[in-house]
Amino acid sequence: MSEESTFLRACRRQPTDYTPVWLMRQAGRYMKEYRAIRQKYSFLAMCKTPDVAAEVTLQPVEKLGVDAAIIFSDILVPLEPMGIDLEYAQGEGPVIHNPVRTAADIDKLRVITPEEDVPFVLAAVRKVRQALDGKVPLIGFAGAPFTLASYMIEGGHSRNFIRTKQLMYRHPGDWHRLMEKLADVTLRYLNAQIEAGAQAVQMFDSWVGCLNPDDYAAFVLPYSRRVFQGLQGSAPAIHFGTISSTLLEHMREAGGDVIGVDWRIDLGTAWQRIGYDRAVQGNLDPVALFSPLASVRKLARKILESAGNRPGHIFNLGHGILPETPAENVIALVDTVHELSQR
Amino acid sequence: MSEESTFLRACRRQPTDYTPVWLMRQAGRYMKEYRAIRQKYSFLAMCKTPDVAAEVTLQPVEKLGVDAAIIFSDILVPLEPMGIDLEYAQGEGPVIHNPVRTAADIDKLRVITPEEDVPFVLAAVRKVRQALDGKVPLIGFAGAPFTLASYMIEGGHSRNFIRTKQLMYRHPGDWHRLMEKLADVTLRYLNAQIEAGAQAVQMFDSWVGCLNPDDYAAFVLPYSRRVFQGLQGSAPAIHFGTISSTLLEHMREAGGDVIGVDWRIDLGTAWQRIGYDRAVQGNLDPVALFSPLASVRKLARKILESAGNRPGHIFNLGHGILPETPAENVIALVDTVHELSQR
Repeated sequence: MSEESTFLRACRRQPTDYTPVWLMRQAGRYMKEYRAIRQKYSFLAMCKTPDVAAEVTLQPVEKLGVDAAIIFSDILVPLEPMGIDLEYAQGEGPVIHNPVRTAADIDKLRVITPEEDVPFVLAAVRKVRQALDGKVPLIGFAGAPFTLASYMIEGGHSRNFIRTKQLMYRHPGDWHRLMEKLADVTLRYLNAQIEAGAQAVQMFDSWVGCLNPDDYAAFVLPYSRRVFQGLQGSAPAIHFGTISSTLLEHMREAGGDVIGVDWRIDLGTAWQRIGYDRAVQGNLDPVALFSPLASVRKLARKILESAGNRPGHIFNLGHGILPETPAENVIALVDTVHELSQR
Repeated sequence: MSEESTFLRACRRQPTDYTPVWLMRQAGRYMKEYRAIRQKYSFLAMCKTPDVAAEVTLQPVEKLGVDAAIIFSDILVPLEPMGIDLEYAQGEGPVIHNPVRTAADIDKLRVITPEEDVPFVLAAVRKVRQALDGKVPLIGFAGAPFTLASYMIEGGHSRNFIRTKQLMYRHPGDWHRLMEKLADVTLRYLNAQIEAGAQAVQMFDSWVGCLNPDDYAAFVLPYSRRVFQGLQGSAPAIHFGTISSTLLEHMREAGGDVIGVDWRIDLGTAWQRIGYDRAVQGNLDPVALFSPLASVRKLARKILESAGNRPGHIFNLGHGILPETPAENVIALVDTVHELSQR
């Protein structure tokens, strides 16, 4: 039954009755139900407690009526068992206390075995899958090798990615060894989620837009491709990036049944460049949700028109929902997409 | 004599003996001569003291052998006499203590008269022009209306530009009034610099890449165009943005003899999209300067090859030199561009 879902059909570019929609960070701080739970647990504790992760995963399915659930977790979760000392500092985002800077640091990183090292994620996937009972499909996810590498090397968020690019340019051998390990981790982690019940997976290459296309092709593409080529079973894969308008052809080449598109490019233009043998996901600016409802509707309509009723469009934002977003606008967006896209 | 300069000829797409090069923030903290002066003055004091601004402007011409000087200043300097309470906090970048949020805030903003309100900038332009004595041309500059608006509204740097876009979407009338004022200020300011002796001007729309192309066309393009159309005399104008790969056609439409291109797109591809009736400037990643010299040379060569010896390429970075950049690599880059591009 869930195999017939609107979301999975769209991932496979099959016709659907309407355009499916889900939203990155649909389980998040903009929602009061989430904030109520978050007061009781640290962010990492939420990720590591399957009951809590499952509850938070299910909230937006009930509240928003989205066409897919995405497991509540964080792309940095598998880094801890690799040997990374990770902390989510209050209001600062992730902080890594032992950043990866040298060949020795890279050698020390463990390639994880998800069943042993992050069993709580897989337990949460199983719980959610059972609770959803076929209502909507469940998406698993992981960080892409480049984005994970950038966090490990910089020690957290970065503005200019100086240390990341320094490793790439100055010590390409070390870079390639690090990316090999990370590709293995991401692949194992996504396959474990699929085996636990995830019906689709998304690979987040959120910071890849800091690269020029040639460097992407030389230093990133082979490792992202290794992940997509190694995925097992029939779960469709979504390949996501931001500021990636000039990388779309390369991202397509690296793989993914669905290519994520951010709001900086017209969706129709992006799809033409990606090629119609792939589905696309996107591409509303998360900040558009701060505008009046009439404006949200207008922007959503433009995106649907740009996709042109071609099978294979999954509506989403171009990046995650921001914490300050008015929840009523998020609900209205989902309704709007469903309403405007009825065939 | 300076009218015949390599830089100005390239701006006008006339053949040159080699590809001219200058670098955004070529007068900056990466250089020990700059740091020595910076220890004695606050950043704003440097901008407001013509002798100091002139000295700092000339340093990289001597030290790097670049093909143009750019007046030492900051895009936010004209905001103070508009009524903005501006501070450069230590290590934090600009802070605006009275951000523009309401219609009343916009009404209060003064449209400046540069000769009266920022005479120190014009005095510095005259001094530098005299000191250069035709050696290389002098570039004047200003912030673009959108980028200035975003600073005024957000109160400093921003990650998501939520308040800026809120004003755009929720109060478009207010937005357009603000942009009209800022277009007037930018235009007056650039024309005053041209009159004082600037032989080219650059308009920095550094943060425009947060917008989707439709919003750029509706909310930004008319005001940038108003600036370019109002420029007096024959000084070529450079139109600069970052994360602007999907806006290049619109930026071209807004105006500029030269369109700035960041490193996220192949320069040849960008030029084809912009059209060969414009010159292009760019597009080395500033972080590339942290790599070994052999790698800097390889990356510079790629860009020159991508430009394909077509008249009208000005070599530059895709954004400003970063403070931690090794100075010897900056010097080597200028030499490399000159050497590799000899016709």
